[in-house]
Amino acid sequence: MLKPIVFYFDFSSPYAYFAADKIDHVAMEFGGREVEWRPFLLGVAMKTTQNQPLMHQPVKGEYSVQDWDRMARFMKIPWTLPSKFPIASIVAARAYYWIYDTDRIVAKEFARQCFATYFGEGRSIADVDTIGKIGSRVGIDSAELKKAIVEERIKERLKTETQEAIDAGVFGSPFFIVDDAKFWGSDRIWMIKRWLKTGGW
Amino acid sequence: MLKPIVFYFDFSSPYAYFAADKIDHVAMEFGGREVEWRPFLLGVAMKTTQNQPLMHQPVKGEYSVQDWDRMARFMKIPWTLPSKFPIASIVAARAYYWIYDTDRIVAKEFARQCFATYFGEGRSIADVDTIGKIGSRVGIDSAELKKAIVEERIKERLKTETQEAIDAGVFGSPFFIVDDAKFWGSDRIWMIKRWLKTGGW
Repeated sequence: MLKPIVFYFDFSSPYAYFAADKIDHVAMEFGGREVEWRPFLLGVAMKTTQNQPLMHQPVKGEYSVQDWDRMARFMKIPWTLPSKFPIASIVAARAYYWIYDTDRIVAKEFARQCFATYFGEGRSIADVDTIGKIGSRVGIDSAELKKAIVEERIKERLKTETQEAIDAGVFGSPFFIVDDAKFWGSDRIWMIKRWLKTGGW
Repeated sequence: MLKPIVFYFDFSSPYAYFAADKIDHVAMEFGGREVEWRPFLLGVAMKTTQNQPLMHQPVKGEYSVQDWDRMARFMKIPWTLPSKFPIASIVAARAYYWIYDTDRIVAKEFARQCFATYFGEGRSIADVDTIGKIGSRVGIDSAELKKAIVEERIKERLKTETQEAIDAGVFGSPFFIVDDAKFWGSDRIWMIKRWLKTGGW
């Protein structure tokens, strides 16, 4: 049984949005593999690497805005730079793991809907009400979801997930682990394809 | 007459080494274009963007070392992580422009030899003697070259080139400008290919 590809991402990462559109297809077509989606808090990881969000970096931030727009046009997927960007993705990530513990398929669909709302429509997903509504769109009881994401257990869960990502060497979003090989960035999906096809080099 | 693609790079940048191996071929095959090579001092540009060399970034630096190795094996080109890395590439860049003012073809060959020495063999190109020897390998009088690179005029020249790169929005290496479009990273060469083929989008 082949190990799933682990896809680490932050819900507030545009390049993760682009990668999310492709990685499951690539994994299945070129490697017959599942993809395990693992949101984490990039802001926490960046304390380890002493890095800054792209938008806070002069010049590079402006380039990135153009690059996202160009990438979305190329991929022909909806794209709206959110007026609130970046955001704290903590609520979305907690909700994800709560759903995940019951149903991984639904959790992935929830994550896709979060990305579609945030980067497709440009609407913030930082608040509990929006996350509740997105939950109900994928068949989750929104009242239950909203209650769950403030519980201690799920707060701890996300902390643990984030720490495990950091311990695994994850420093950016998206980040992929294929067996023992690490790949950072949506720009590395072509390499993951070849890695899967050839078994690595 | 199509405008040449401008290829900005720092001689101390591994991803520039990888890009240098491909960009002229891509530009010619997909766009019928020349490539103008313009070394600049990335360290100076990074003051604008408040960025740090990859090797000075925890975790990301270690990932990069693995990634360069993997990339070189994939591309089947010589690769040795230099024991002195990163280095000040100021001597190589000054020499480049001095040669360039007489012969652009020879300058490009000189640049390729610098990359081959530094990243292919892993030998530092920070010192004047090595640069002199590399010069003589491409038919340049090494004594003349060594004298030229300490002259005020060529020092000023590199300062101006670096400032012009920064003014053009260059913040990393490699960086490409195709007409008005900017592309950062050797990971963007696939996009440059399509940009040239389609005329952009």
